Amino acid sequence: MRKGVLRPGHIQLRVLDLEASIKHYVELLGLHETDRDEQGRVYLKAWSEVDKFSLVLREADEPGMDFMAFKVVDESTLASLTADIEAFGLEVTHKEAGDLKDCGRRVQFTAPSGHVFELYAEKAYTGKWGVEETNPEAWPRALRGMKAVRFDHCLLYGDELAKTYDLFVDVLGFYLAEQVLDPDGNRIAQFLTLSMKAHDIAFIQHEEKAKFHHASFYLETWEDILRAADLISMTNTSLDIGPTRHGITHGKTIYFFDPSGNRNEVFAGGDYMYPDHNPITWKAEDLGKAIFYHDRVLNERFLTVLT
Amino acid sequence: MRKGVLRPGHIQLRVLDLEASIKHYVELLGLHETDRDEQGRVYLKAWSEVDKFSLVLREADEPGMDFMAFKVVDESTLASLTADIEAFGLEVTHKEAGDLKDCGRRVQFTAPSGHVFELYAEKAYTGKWGVEETNPEAWPRALRGMKAVRFDHCLLYGDELAKTYDLFVDVLGFYLAEQVLDPDGNRIAQFLTLSMKAHDIAFIQHEEKAKFHHASFYLETWEDILRAADLISMTNTSLDIGPTRHGITHGKTIYFFDPSGNRNEVFAGGDYMYPDHNPITWKAEDLGKAIFYHDRVLNERFLTVLT
Amino acid sequence: MRKGVLRPGHIQLRVLDLEASIKHYVELLGLHETDRDEQGRVYLKAWSEVDKFSLVLREADEPGMDFMAFKVVDESTLASLTADIEAFGLEVTHKEAGDLKDCGRRVQFTAPSGHVFELYAEKAYTGKWGVEETNPEAWPRALRGMKAVRFDHCLLYGDELAKTYDLFVDVLGFYLAEQVLDPDGNRIAQFLTLSMKAHDIAFIQHEEKAKFHHASFYLETWEDILRAADLISMTNTSLDIGPTRHGITHGKTIYFFDPSGNRNEVFAGGDYMYPDHNPITWKAEDLGKAIFYHDRVLNERFLTVLT
Amino acid sequence: MRKGVLRPGHIQLRVLDLEASIKHYVELLGLHETDRDEQGRVYLKAWSEVDKFSLVLREADEPGMDFMAFKVVDESTLASLTADIEAFGLEVTHKEAGDLKDCGRRVQFTAPSGHVFELYAEKAYTGKWGVEETNPEAWPRALRGMKAVRFDHCLLYGDELAKTYDLFVDVLGFYLAEQVLDPDGNRIAQFLTLSMKAHDIAFIQHEEKAKFHHASFYLETWEDILRAADLISMTNTSLDIGPTRHGITHGKTIYFFDPSGNRNEVFAGGDYMYPDHNPITWKAEDLGKAIFYHDRVLNERFLTVLT
Repeated sequence: MRKGVLRPGHIQLRVLDLEASIKHYVELLGLHETDRDEQGRVYLKAWSEVDKFSLVLREADEPGMDFMAFKVVDESTLASLTADIEAFGLEVTHKEAGDLKDCGRRVQFTAPSGHVFELYAEKAYTGKWGVEETNPEAWPRALRGMKAVRFDHCLLYGDELAKTYDLFVDVLGFYLAEQVLDPDGNRIAQFLTLSMKAHDIAFIQHEEKAKFHHASFYLETWEDILRAADLISMTNTSLDIGPTRHGITHGKTIYFFDPSGNRNEVFAGGDYMYPDHNPITWKAEDLGKAIFYHDRVLNERFLTVLT
Repeated sequence: MRKGVLRPGHIQLRVLDLEASIKHYVELLGLHETDRDEQGRVYLKAWSEVDKFSLVLREADEPGMDFMAFKVVDESTLASLTADIEAFGLEVTHKEAGDLKDCGRRVQFTAPSGHVFELYAEKAYTGKWGVEETNPEAWPRALRGMKAVRFDHCLLYGDELAKTYDLFVDVLGFYLAEQVLDPDGNRIAQFLTLSMKAHDIAFIQHEEKAKFHHASFYLETWEDILRAADLISMTNTSLDIGPTRHGITHGKTIYFFDPSGNRNEVFAGGDYMYPDHNPITWKAEDLGKAIFYHDRVLNERFLTVLT
Repeated sequence: MRKGVLRPGHIQLRVLDLEASIKHYVELLGLHETDRDEQGRVYLKAWSEVDKFSLVLREADEPGMDFMAFKVVDESTLASLTADIEAFGLEVTHKEAGDLKDCGRRVQFTAPSGHVFELYAEKAYTGKWGVEETNPEAWPRALRGMKAVRFDHCLLYGDELAKTYDLFVDVLGFYLAEQVLDPDGNRIAQFLTLSMKAHDIAFIQHEEKAKFHHASFYLETWEDILRAADLISMTNTSLDIGPTRHGITHGKTIYFFDPSGNRNEVFAGGDYMYPDHNPITWKAEDLGKAIFYHDRVLNERFLTVLT
Repeated sequence: MRKGVLRPGHIQLRVLDLEASIKHYVELLGLHETDRDEQGRVYLKAWSEVDKFSLVLREADEPGMDFMAFKVVDESTLASLTADIEAFGLEVTHKEAGDLKDCGRRVQFTAPSGHVFELYAEKAYTGKWGVEETNPEAWPRALRGMKAVRFDHCLLYGDELAKTYDLFVDVLGFYLAEQVLDPDGNRIAQFLTLSMKAHDIAFIQHEEKAKFHHASFYLETWEDILRAADLISMTNTSLDIGPTRHGITHGKTIYFFDPSGNRNEVFAGGDYMYPDHNPITWKAEDLGKAIFYHDRVLNERFLTVLT
């Protein structure tokens, strides 16, 4: 949080069928619907999140990610980061407060990788779902499905990883937790973090810009990953791969698809990081083990990404 | 245990390279070498087993299973079961005490499925490995690798499943825990048990006789399955599939291969059974989910079996 | 199951306030109410049990156990066991079919320890709760609270343990899994089992007859024990002790009280047994560790039992 | 990390018998001895820590904590924080580089609570124990005992909590994660964090200054807490309380004592925090549940602290 960027704050996903998507994210992942807006967008959050929403669903003809947002500590940080982004050479677009319901003004920009990101400082503080701030119980009894704890990170595919790295590290204050290097020493994947997490955002080199791989939600334990896998099967949800462990981050994971084809991950555990840690390096020739630690090969489906 | 057959007692596997195999079963699975014999065979056991061995490795030119044995309660039961097997129409071969070191006399027969089985009543009682019979600690501190708890069951492929069922149920006192039925109502897989386990032996219909699919060892928890998966990767062991859950038995599982190509399973949990329970039925058209509950498809490798 | 006794089939408990008790067993333990009868008794079962009920609650002025029942394989076994019990010197009382709703005739007797037991061969077969017999899912999604898997065993306090041992072992076909011996070699606790479980019934020596310590329900994992502990706290339920592990059986456990003061246990794991295993012995001077493996002392509350 | 303080870096504990203590921390907790110095002090670290040591043992006549250290991001931060601490009104003592082997210069000060703390910017970077920086395996196979992951935090007892709060929050950049308030609104316990952890340091109000409650080490899972509990019993180590869960932080925990009487904790999980989260408040009248979520009472032993 060197530059005042706190954490991933929300993601807006395009879905083909709003009601089917809500059912997926509420009944299967266990998110909570917190609001809808005049455009018909639906706002959801995971139970441990203190702000009003972390996932926005927008009905559209094609699935994929509209944008991903990071929360910054305050308005003055937002202002200075805006200047820094512009100084970096990117155009910014200003979204006024209320454009996303109960969210303050947002500053949008397109990273060199082609993805749209945004920063904001304010969002309605609703507290955790189902537990009090005084004498809080360990968890809410009324959780459903996978009981997702929080929206955690995204994995995105695109080009210009080096410039994107500069943007995230030099301007926004992320640091490099893990990387994949090809035999020539080129970084073909970069896992960037703001704090102690193994990643808050990750990029993999791709010939096309602006591809979406997955949005990831945190669970507590490996046993929760099993329950998630069971629920995927019980609900006849499309499984990508898992349960398994990643090499990169060492998180325990399962990938699956929402009804529109957006890939979701739920994961648990994984390494912790500090800014003074050397980054972890994986060799591109061992990418299979880096991504899927047990199988040690990439399944073809893993390589599919959305526009 | 209706007829006095207690449990799977041992399995003899053929391996190509004895030392590589010992390393696999001792350092990776965590079995304990308990003896060797004049033929060069190596005897191993899992820590919770009270008898001297449950796995015998024999060096040979081809991998596969020589035979699987069941322990019966006493010598008179062994005698009467021998008569019953002969009355069923099978020839029996008598192996004298000591043919397997510290094991009493064994009665061998070939099931209609083509597999060689044997019964015995006596084996040297060594007690559990690493814990005492008085004030026993919860587990031995010196366990290695996957810390396999016990040899549990085998899955075998062969034909004449109906006759094999009659042998195991009517003569040996097993009962049917789970089955797979094709649309015509033919049983194409049968999971048979002696007591509360989801299976002590399982058969899947195959055009050829006497095929070996896997030998399975019990672990305690889903977290142990993860550790097993991690160890498989760390030791560059050939993975078949997992970690995942079976539909049949609902056990949590991972499949992998020993250095000779014999498939091993380690699994945890799974349903318990009683003789008055109705058998569970899986439809052949849902075999993918029956075998691999999460993927819901059979991987090709699963179908490979050894002669 | 040497003599045809299958398993603990049900227990009838006295409770002070029926509705509070139902709330406890249904919402907290996760049992399912399956019926009520004209006497006002309430019938419950755990989800994995195939028969109609395993717990009967009877409103009364004092808490405690009315009787515990074992299911036997068939009517002829029930008849022969009845004769054997009478030959052992006990009087039997015949309860006709329907006295407990949808349960066949029961044969009651008072063990030398002072406790009332009963045998029965028939009970309405309802199948598992929430899962099908064909292509069954791994678990029912609608489970509540602790998600108890099955009624598992009782621990009872009384005198005449030796005679009670003879009844259970010689007449009913149980075998000794674990015992506590005092320095003079007297057995002051006996854990008896019918099959592979670490215990189906357990007795601890007490100067008075017919004392009830606890009724135990099975959970799947140590993580379930944590969730149970959390729920005990969230519901302000009276905790006895745990989460912890027993030395005897090595099961992972937590003890707590229903609203009437009947002690419940939920536990997971623990050792498996076979009839040819030597019994495990604990020294009376190490009883603390035998009962509570981590604390290694008995808390005073553990010693309280109901009349 | 608002002011450049990264994390707890090390703690120096006094022990009565050095060899018994090393055995405790190495064989039971699973730390690794990394060096000894001319004064006879022993340096240890947990496997996931990248710096050379996190625990220093010094033989002395009385147990307890000499000091606890925090690592800061760089030398200039160390210089400016030193000035800030002096400006806050505390005297600082300068320990030159090498006073602790392979550690840079340290700045010591006594907090209003009476405890000695120190800051440093440099320590020999040894990388994680047993895993590589390139293609790292999920965990080192050679870990022992409890397999402690990292030194995590301390709980200290002392007076002047408000002034201590000002020091840690205003000067050092910690923020308040959780607190216990008495009915008059006085803060009698404060759990302070630098980043996403539920606490990096915690203080409880006590009439005397400079009391040491415990040093805590992180484990990965609730199952690891069970294994820790088992090992405590197997090694006849003095148990304080657990396995259980805290209300404050919701971490899963067990407390025990080293051979000198220093209290250790190993814990897993627990809530994550961000600087924009409201602090969690526990009522002093519910302190039992706040500390031990399941028992809901404080055991007497918990209240004992070392000078």
